[in-house]
Amino acid sequence: MNEIKAINVQISCNLECDSCERFYDCNAPEKESFKEKGRMQLAREAMGRIKYKILVLGGKGGVGKTMTAVNLAAVLAMKGRKVTVLDQNFDGPAVPRMLGIEGKKLSIGERGLVPVDASLDIQVVSMGLILEENEVLTWFHDMKRNALEEFSCHVEYGDRDYLVIDVPAGTSSETVNVLKYIPDLDGAVVVTVPSMVSQNVAKKAVLLCLKANIKVFGIVENMSGFTCPDCNERVDIIQRGGGEMLAEELKVPFLGKIPLDPMVADSSDEGKPFVISYPDREASKAMVSIAESVEESLGYS
Amino acid sequence: MNEIKAINVQISCNLECDSCERFYDCNAPEKESFKEKGRMQLAREAMGRIKYKILVLGGKGGVGKTMTAVNLAAVLAMKGRKVTVLDQNFDGPAVPRMLGIEGKKLSIGERGLVPVDASLDIQVVSMGLILEENEVLTWFHDMKRNALEEFSCHVEYGDRDYLVIDVPAGTSSETVNVLKYIPDLDGAVVVTVPSMVSQNVAKKAVLLCLKANIKVFGIVENMSGFTCPDCNERVDIIQRGGGEMLAEELKVPFLGKIPLDPMVADSSDEGKPFVISYPDREASKAMVSIAESVEESLGYS
Repeated sequence: MNEIKAINVQISCNLECDSCERFYDCNAPEKESFKEKGRMQLAREAMGRIKYKILVLGGKGGVGKTMTAVNLAAVLAMKGRKVTVLDQNFDGPAVPRMLGIEGKKLSIGERGLVPVDASLDIQVVSMGLILEENEVLTWFHDMKRNALEEFSCHVEYGDRDYLVIDVPAGTSSETVNVLKYIPDLDGAVVVTVPSMVSQNVAKKAVLLCLKANIKVFGIVENMSGFTCPDCNERVDIIQRGGGEMLAEELKVPFLGKIPLDPMVADSSDEGKPFVISYPDREASKAMVSIAESVEESLGYS
Repeated sequence: MNEIKAINVQISCNLECDSCERFYDCNAPEKESFKEKGRMQLAREAMGRIKYKILVLGGKGGVGKTMTAVNLAAVLAMKGRKVTVLDQNFDGPAVPRMLGIEGKKLSIGERGLVPVDASLDIQVVSMGLILEENEVLTWFHDMKRNALEEFSCHVEYGDRDYLVIDVPAGTSSETVNVLKYIPDLDGAVVVTVPSMVSQNVAKKAVLLCLKANIKVFGIVENMSGFTCPDCNERVDIIQRGGGEMLAEELKVPFLGKIPLDPMVADSSDEGKPFVISYPDREASKAMVSIAESVEESLGYS
């Protein structure tokens, strides 16, 4: 078993920090020079006119990261912000569908890919705007890294208030690469679900952010309770309070609870964020409050 | 953009098929020799006395793969089968908790790791039975591959009727490696949720199995509807029928619908499969029917 655990340290260093998976685990003083080199500089140029860069991640799959990212972007856009959503999911990019731009394609400008416009002033960069709808592509490790680099360095982001980055599930090297390839991240929103069994993965996502020196705006508890539309009784279908407890344990803010709501799933398929379609639902009010907490943390008003 | 798509073919072949990520996409005649070589032979020896090997996968995260795997194993065990659950989740292994053996550790026997006994005649192999509970480990690509190999080749599986393999989310190289490292798989149960936006990922999981020549027993639609415990009204919280439609589209069997049920989440945390704790619930009846379909497909009675 120690053999398994020790694999990480058996791999020799080639001093190529910018392609190294072990970046955050590495203590070598040489790694610092990475930040000023090559692709990091390109990313900094491509993203140089974006005011704030926010991650939405969760560690665990299926907790509603994309739903949160899209609705956070929509709340910010409703407040008049210019928002770009960067969808880092390659296995199943859902941002285009949720924002009603499925079938559109990224074009190529002078300095790289040109984001696609969605409603309000939301723009989108997603692998779903490159691949054909039914194209089945098995992504390999190097391919993902190259695509991440492409999305960081060769996109005409332009002047934006926010870049909201939808980070795929996982706390392994793929996620580390996402964090590593975007310069000067301003913070992260961590999404989880209420059940206890899910918290160890969400916890790893928070710890990964802290290890990477990324501020954690706080934890969102999604799928948190359900109110029966027929009798108005509240039922905690997948338990209650796991996200809140985790926030307390890790001493990071708790940003709010988004209840289960059939309209949320419907909105995702209809291509319109629920905060726009159903602004009066409890879920929408929770999203508005989450967005306000984030802006407050950033001192942006 | 073609540049991104073309990355896959730019990498030269070193004829080391057993460590190659591109295994299923490769048409080179040399690759066939892999199957008779080295670690594949070791895996065949370690797993040689297991009658049937079943994958539970879904592509998308958070759809209930682990819950399905654990309860499928429990139904089979209740029928008197000897079942081992192989938990391939490294980022957040949940099988030990769901089977009430959290905190126990795999020991080492003469021929490798010794699975941990859970209730009935269920045994478990999981990274959660190796790492300490609060150990945060960032898994890198090579580490995962090595750990997969360890779990395939160096475990004292012994005489078993079933190996139920809980495959983590994804349809990329990590998942391909899981399929590749286990010899002679008998088939796969694909788990999805009802919403349309989730089906493209589940579809990729099915297509991946077909590409790897693995029989698809069928599709399970989890989180399918909810019956309010107060008024008994049924609500389709995250839509309805996406899994059934996908089965129809891909011409694979539809195995059944597992409804949302607070007792399911509670059972997972309590460490006892809900088919054992609550055999009369609709979810339990659906699981029994799924297990029976699988045994029927295998001609095992």
